[in-house]
Amino acid sequence: MSSPSPDELSAVAFDGEALTYVDQRLIPHAVERKRARTVDDIEEAIKTLAVRGAPAIGVFGAYGVAMLRDLIDNDEAFAVAARRVRDARPTAVNLAWAVDRVLAAADMRTEAQAIHREQLAMDAAIADAGLELIRKGARVLTHCNTGPIATAGGGTALGIIIAAQRAGKSPHVFVDETRPLLQGARLTYFELAHAGVDATLQVDGAAAIAMQRKKIDLVIVGADRIARNGDTANKIGTYGLAILAAHHGIPFYVAAPRSTFDFTMESGASIHIEERAPSEVTAFGGTTVAPPDAQVYNPAFDVTPGHLITAFVTEYGVIHPPYHETIPALELRPNASAFVTGGPCA
Amino acid sequence: MSSPSPDELSAVAFDGEALTYVDQRLIPHAVERKRARTVDDIEEAIKTLAVRGAPAIGVFGAYGVAMLRDLIDNDEAFAVAARRVRDARPTAVNLAWAVDRVLAAADMRTEAQAIHREQLAMDAAIADAGLELIRKGARVLTHCNTGPIATAGGGTALGIIIAAQRAGKSPHVFVDETRPLLQGARLTYFELAHAGVDATLQVDGAAAIAMQRKKIDLVIVGADRIARNGDTANKIGTYGLAILAAHHGIPFYVAAPRSTFDFTMESGASIHIEERAPSEVTAFGGTTVAPPDAQVYNPAFDVTPGHLITAFVTEYGVIHPPYHETIPALELRPNASAFVTGGPCA
Repeated sequence: MSSPSPDELSAVAFDGEALTYVDQRLIPHAVERKRARTVDDIEEAIKTLAVRGAPAIGVFGAYGVAMLRDLIDNDEAFAVAARRVRDARPTAVNLAWAVDRVLAAADMRTEAQAIHREQLAMDAAIADAGLELIRKGARVLTHCNTGPIATAGGGTALGIIIAAQRAGKSPHVFVDETRPLLQGARLTYFELAHAGVDATLQVDGAAAIAMQRKKIDLVIVGADRIARNGDTANKIGTYGLAILAAHHGIPFYVAAPRSTFDFTMESGASIHIEERAPSEVTAFGGTTVAPPDAQVYNPAFDVTPGHLITAFVTEYGVIHPPYHETIPALELRPNASAFVTGGPCA
Repeated sequence: MSSPSPDELSAVAFDGEALTYVDQRLIPHAVERKRARTVDDIEEAIKTLAVRGAPAIGVFGAYGVAMLRDLIDNDEAFAVAARRVRDARPTAVNLAWAVDRVLAAADMRTEAQAIHREQLAMDAAIADAGLELIRKGARVLTHCNTGPIATAGGGTALGIIIAAQRAGKSPHVFVDETRPLLQGARLTYFELAHAGVDATLQVDGAAAIAMQRKKIDLVIVGADRIARNGDTANKIGTYGLAILAAHHGIPFYVAAPRSTFDFTMESGASIHIEERAPSEVTAFGGTTVAPPDAQVYNPAFDVTPGHLITAFVTEYGVIHPPYHETIPALELRPNASAFVTGGPCA
C-alpha cells in the first residue's frame, strides 16, 4: 500500500523511500520540495516552520518516525530519535498523538499512511459537505489559511472553495491578508491562484467595505477549537469578521472536522487566549514599523460566540443551530481521524 | 507677529527666516527637523511625503510661498516658483487653497502665520470640546493618525486624547496599526508616547477582542469628509470599527473641524472611494509578502453611515443626532479656518 500520490503543493509526501515536504517559508516566492533524510532534517523542518499547520505536522512526524525505524537498527537510538521528532513542537498536540500512534503499530509505515489517508478522507468529506453552501459565481470572503498546505490533506474552508471551483461553480474569493503573520497574503492567495480560483487580496480593515460594496455572499473560515455551544476559537480577526457578517446579513460558516470540537468545554469562556511576541506587530520582514519597545496587544486567537455562526461544516455534514442539541449529537459519531486538536492556521 | 513657537514634534515651523519641518518618513526611527531653503526643497518635501497630512501641507505651502517671495525678486520667477509649490500634490486641496490665500494677501508672511494660528486655534477648540467625553482612566481605541504631525496644529482625535492626558485624566489608548500604510504603528503610537500617553499597539484584526476583553470605553477617529446626514469618509477600516463599537455598545466619536463637513453632499452614497496601488498590500517594508501580480482590492477610505456615529466633535462643540438637523445648523457658523477639505490621515 503506497502513500497518497502528491501534487506539486502537497505539504508532505512519502513514496516509501523519500520523505519530502514543501518549504512553506519560501511561499509565495518559490515552491521548493525538500527531502528529509535524517532525524536532524525532520526536527529542523518542524522547528523552523518549514512544515506548519497542526495536521500537516502530524502527518510529517508520522512518516518521519516510520522512515527512521528502517534507518536506525539500534532500538535505543531509534527511541531517542522518535522522541526528538515527537517533541519538536511541544504545542502541536497532533504531532505527539501521530508519533505515538505510529510507535504503537505493528507496521509503522502502514500506520503513517493510514493517518495521511484519514486526513485526506476527512478533508474531502468536509469539502463535499460544504459544496451545497456555494452557489455558482458566489463571492466568498475568507481569513487566514486553511488550505492543503496546512493540513497535508485538501484543506478545510479552502478545501470547500477549491472543491467548488472543481465543480464548475467559479467562486470569487476575497482573501484577508491576516495580520500579523499574513497567512492570507502569503499562503491562501497563493493556494487559490494555484488551484485556478479567482481571488482578490485585501487588508483586514477592508472586510467591512467589501461586504458593503462587493456583494459578498458568504464568509467561511476554519477553527482551532469549538465548544459545545458553538463558541469558536480561531485566528485573530475572526470574531470581528463574524460581527461584520451579521451586520450585513451575510452567512458566516466555520469548516472543521469533528476532532476540532472540544465536547468537554461548555462554552468559549474558558478558552485561554495565547498572546504572542510584540515583534510580530512592531517589525515585519526585517523592517521595524513601530518603536521596538512599544507596548503591544498581540492575541493569536479570538473567540467567536456560537450565535454569530450560521452553521458548521464537518465531515458528517452541515451542522445548524440549536448548537446545544446538534453539537452533542456530533459527539456520538466517531472521529474520522483521531486528530485531537490544532487548527490548520496554527 | 511671529509664528507659533514649535515643540520638537511640530510638523512645520517658520521663525521668520528658517522654514523647517519634521521628516515624517523617518518616524519612528528618528525625529529629524530639516530646513527647506529653496523651491526645490519645498516641492521635494511635499512630493516625497516628508511633510504629509492635508492641513500640515497647507501650512507648509503657505510659509513656503511667503518665504520665496522674499528670496525671489523677479515677479515672473516668483510666480513660477509659487505655482510649483501649489501643484506639488494635486489632490491636497488645502495646499492650493493656502497658497492662493497667501498670494492674495498684502503681507504674505502675516497671512501664512494667520493660517497656521487658525489651524492651532481650531485644533485646540476641538480638543476642548472633546474633553468632556473622556473620563479619568478611560480606555480609548483609535485608528490611523490624527495627531499634531498631520495637522501642524494640535491634532483632531489625537488632540483630544493628548488634551485629556494634560488634564490629568490618564487615558489608555489602544492604537490600531492601520494597514496598509501603518499610520497607527508608525505615527500615532509614536506621538502618544511622546506626549506621555499610555498606549498599546495592536493589529487591526484585534479591535473586536480588545472591545470584548479590554473594557474599551470609547472609540474616537478623525474624518476626511462628512456629508449632511453624518455619513463619514475616513481611512479604510473605520467603517468596520464603527460596526464593532455598535455591537459592543461602545460610543463611537468622530473629531473633525467644520471645514471637513461637505454641506453640499446629502449622504455618503456619492463619495468616490479612491483605490490605491496593489503594492501597498503585496509588499510590506520592502519585503514582498504576496505574489507581486496578485489582484488586490485596496480602497484608501470607507464610508461610515451617520447612524453608527454617536457624536461629532468640532471646534463648535459636540454635535449629536439627529444629524439632519444638527449638521445644517453647523453650516450657519463660520469656518474657524477656511481649510476646505482633506483629513489629517490623507
